[in-house]
This record gives sequence, C-alpha cells and structure tokens, in this order.
Amino acid sequence: MCELLGMSANIPTDICFSFSGLMQRGGKTGPHKDGWGVAFYEGRGCRTFHDPFPSSNSEIAKFIKHYPINSRNVICHIRKANRGKVCLENTHPFVRELWGRNWCFAHNGQLKGIKKKLSLEHFEPVGTTDSEHAFCWIMDNIYKKFPKPPQKDQSLAVFIAKLCQTLAEFGVFNILMCDSKYLYAHCSTKLVWITRKAPFGKAKLVDDDMTVDFHQQTTPKDVFTIIATAPLTENEDWHRAQKGDFLVFKDGQRKIFK
Amino acid sequence: MCELLGMSANIPTDICFSFSGLMQRGGKTGPHKDGWGVAFYEGRGCRTFHDPFPSSNSEIAKFIKHYPINSRNVICHIRKANRGKVCLENTHPFVRELWGRNWCFAHNGQLKGIKKKLSLEHFEPVGTTDSEHAFCWIMDNIYKKFPKPPQKDQSLAVFIAKLCQTLAEFGVFNILMCDSKYLYAHCSTKLVWITRKAPFGKAKLVDDDMTVDFHQQTTPKDVFTIIATAPLTENEDWHRAQKGDFLVFKDGQRKIFK
Repeated sequence: MCELLGMSANIPTDICFSFSGLMQRGGKTGPHKDGWGVAFYEGRGCRTFHDPFPSSNSEIAKFIKHYPINSRNVICHIRKANRGKVCLENTHPFVRELWGRNWCFAHNGQLKGIKKKLSLEHFEPVGTTDSEHAFCWIMDNIYKKFPKPPQKDQSLAVFIAKLCQTLAEFGVFNILMCDSKYLYAHCSTKLVWITRKAPFGKAKLVDDDMTVDFHQQTTPKDVFTIIATAPLTENEDWHRAQKGDFLVFKDGQRKIFK
Repeated sequence: MCELLGMSANIPTDICFSFSGLMQRGGKTGPHKDGWGVAFYEGRGCRTFHDPFPSSNSEIAKFIKHYPINSRNVICHIRKANRGKVCLENTHPFVRELWGRNWCFAHNGQLKGIKKKLSLEHFEPVGTTDSEHAFCWIMDNIYKKFPKPPQKDQSLAVFIAKLCQTLAEFGVFNILMCDSKYLYAHCSTKLVWITRKAPFGKAKLVDDDMTVDFHQQTTPKDVFTIIATAPLTENEDWHRAQKGDFLVFKDGQRKIFK
C-alpha cells in the first residue's frame, strides 16, 4: 500500500512541515520505500518531482524539504509497490492535460482486473500500474462526457464522484486528484483531513521529532487543509472520511456543492 | 530568443557538464533570465524540472548541476520571454502523453499569427506561449494521422518533418522534441551538434571556467550527441545545421532514414 498527502490552501503555502513527516514513512517509519512523487500547482502551471528511490534518503526529497515551494494545491505520494515494477514511470502522481489544464492523480490501493474490464481510448498509461490505468480511464470519461469544460463546476464534481464509485468496485480506491482548480478526494478505506485556520496553534509530527507553531508562520487570513491516508500530527483532531466519501476542496476548505 | 540544449546517448549519461555551461547563459553570460526547464528521460518515464527564475542563480539549477541524473534523452531550455508572461506554465520544455509515451518539446524563436491560423482539437496549451501552441498543433496532427503508432518509425519522422516545415513558415522555428525513442531537431536559424565517441578528449566550456576530460568519465563504447543553439565548448568542431534541416537522433548518433 502507499500513502497520500494533499493540501488545498487559499494563498500559496509551503508544505515543508507535512512533507517532512510523510517522507519519513518512505523507508524509515514506514515501509513505503518504492519511490515517491509530489506535484505543486503554481498558477496554471504544475511542478512535479518524482523519484523511484526511498523518500527517507532521497537527495531530491532532502532538497524539497529545505526549499519551500509555495502552492495552493499539492499532491504527494509515497509508494509501496504492489503492481508494476519500481521505476520512474510507475511513480505517482501522474499528470495529464485536458482543456488546457494540468490534471494530477495519486492512488492508494489495488484495483483487481481493471485493465481487462475498463478499456481506454484517448489517454494511455506510460507505466504499468493499475493506478495510472484508473487515472487514464477517468480522464477518458471526462473527455468523452465534456469535450469542453462544463459550465457548472458542480456537474464535473458529481461526474467524477460517480467514476470514483465505479472504480472503487474493483478494490481499494483512496485517491487525491486535482484539476488545477479543485482538489478531489475519494475514500475507500482510509482518508483523514484537517483544516487549519486562525487561531493557529502548534502541531507535532507523528513521524519525526519536529514541531511547528503555525501562529508564527501564517497570517490570520490563511486557511489550508491537509488531507492524508493517516494523521501526520499527534496533537490535533483529524476528520476521518467514511467509506465511499467523495470530498472536494477549494481555497483551503471543504466545498459542498448544493 | 531562447537557448536550447539536447542530448541523445546510447547509455544513460549525465549532462552536468553541458548543463553547467548553458545555465550560465540564463542571466550571467547571456540574457535568458526568464526561466528555464529540463526534461530527462529514464526508461519510459520522464523527469522534468521547471523554474520561472533565472537559471544562473536558481536553487533548483544548482541542485541539478551537482546531482547527476543519467538519461539517454535530455531536452533543456532557457528562456528570454518574447510572447507570454514569465511564469511556470510558460516555461519549456512542455510535456504531453500520446500512445502511452511521454512527448517533450522546447522551442527557440517566434511564430507570428500561429494561434489564429492553426486551430487545436485534442491537445490544448496550459500557458500562453506560441511555442506551446505549436507543440499542441504537432501533437494534434500526429494523433489525427496516427491514432496508433505507425509500424514504421520512418513514417512518423517524415510526417513530423513536414509539420515542422509548415510551422517554420510562421517565423523562427528551432526546436528539440523527443517521443521517448527519438530526439528530433528542426533548424530554422541556428542549431549545432557534436557527436562524442572514443577516442574521447578534453572539452572546455565557452560560458564557464570548466574543463572536462571525457576520456576519464566514459567507456570506449559510449556514444553521445549534444545539440544546441550555439556551441557550448570552445575547443571542439560542432556541425552547423542549415536552414530547414530536420535531424533525428537515436542512441547517441544521427539517424538517417533511407
């Protein structure tokens, strides 16, 4: 299995603190030693770093831990390979372009028989994971249903939620996905999230001897949400998503379409 | 204008030496201060680094200069903005997926009126440059002509050459493009290349006080070609491509389809 980490923020925010915690699970406090990757959105652009080596001693991971990249949407993944060999092209998050937007996807879980049962048309996997196949199938379906972006964002969110339901029938489907505007999350077995806003307090990492005082690092207007497969801090209350939950985040907060 | 650098190699090779020279032109020995980017192919995977800041004092560029990434195909670009503001999404090289392969593109030049005259269908630019528009138009046309990869690689190369001819009619079109297998280059005004193989000698950078003895760093079987918009070393003879030349490289050498 793998671990996921995502962030949605109302202003460009660095994720160094949470990233530091997650990276420890890549071969040190966790068994996820088969590579890692992260995607940072900056405006319409998307910057990704991938590494097929364990994150706990990756040179690139060390660099990112100390080089704050400010972003409003981040998706990060550390991998414990189940399907597909350990190599760069099998490393999440996967990226595709649709409607002139960068779409990004990371998955925790396994999807049995998906390659045989769900065929692809426009988007094809570069690697051999069931995860990338699932992402391409989502993109294919969005493109077929909406050759151009739908007028209402709600229509898109509702459609993606349905696609996730279908995919979850193949096995475990905890995911994070971003279309540059919204951060989408589906919970199959495990997904937690926490929204931080003023008054900010201190947080202590579960996986590393590290504490941060968000009060020192933020302004009262800042709002950001961290989503992960397991709580990253030990002194905060994380919301726990339920099986089948589909969550949408924007500008640092959960967005509920009515 | 911008500067291009590409490498094709028969075994995974690091490009630290040439990269060091090019990066100096990003705000130090050259005026290309509006960002830079590089794509390294590793197997079927493609690792990209982009930065909207000048390469000569970019933290990410410094990191890559000292962290050898071995690759058989590399495309690198430093930008002097003409069209499109300075931001991450306007930074080359641009990447798209087709046939389950990563395609990568970087451009030197300007293409006047291309956005109005060449419409797009499946592939759309994320940023606002004429370069990314040209790349999307190439990808659109390849996808329409060959929904699946053609049996003969030659058919693809000949088709891409024709697309480049059309684009060159809009202005200056010096490019490097890679489809994971071949490195393609089109020369409109300036493009030089050099193939290094045994017996290897010493090379001295034009832009930095740096010399490398390839004899020490290679094996007799290594073959690699460097392609650039201007020679990077001062003591070697670079081939100079002519206006309209379309070149294909594979496994470190020029490939001429018969």
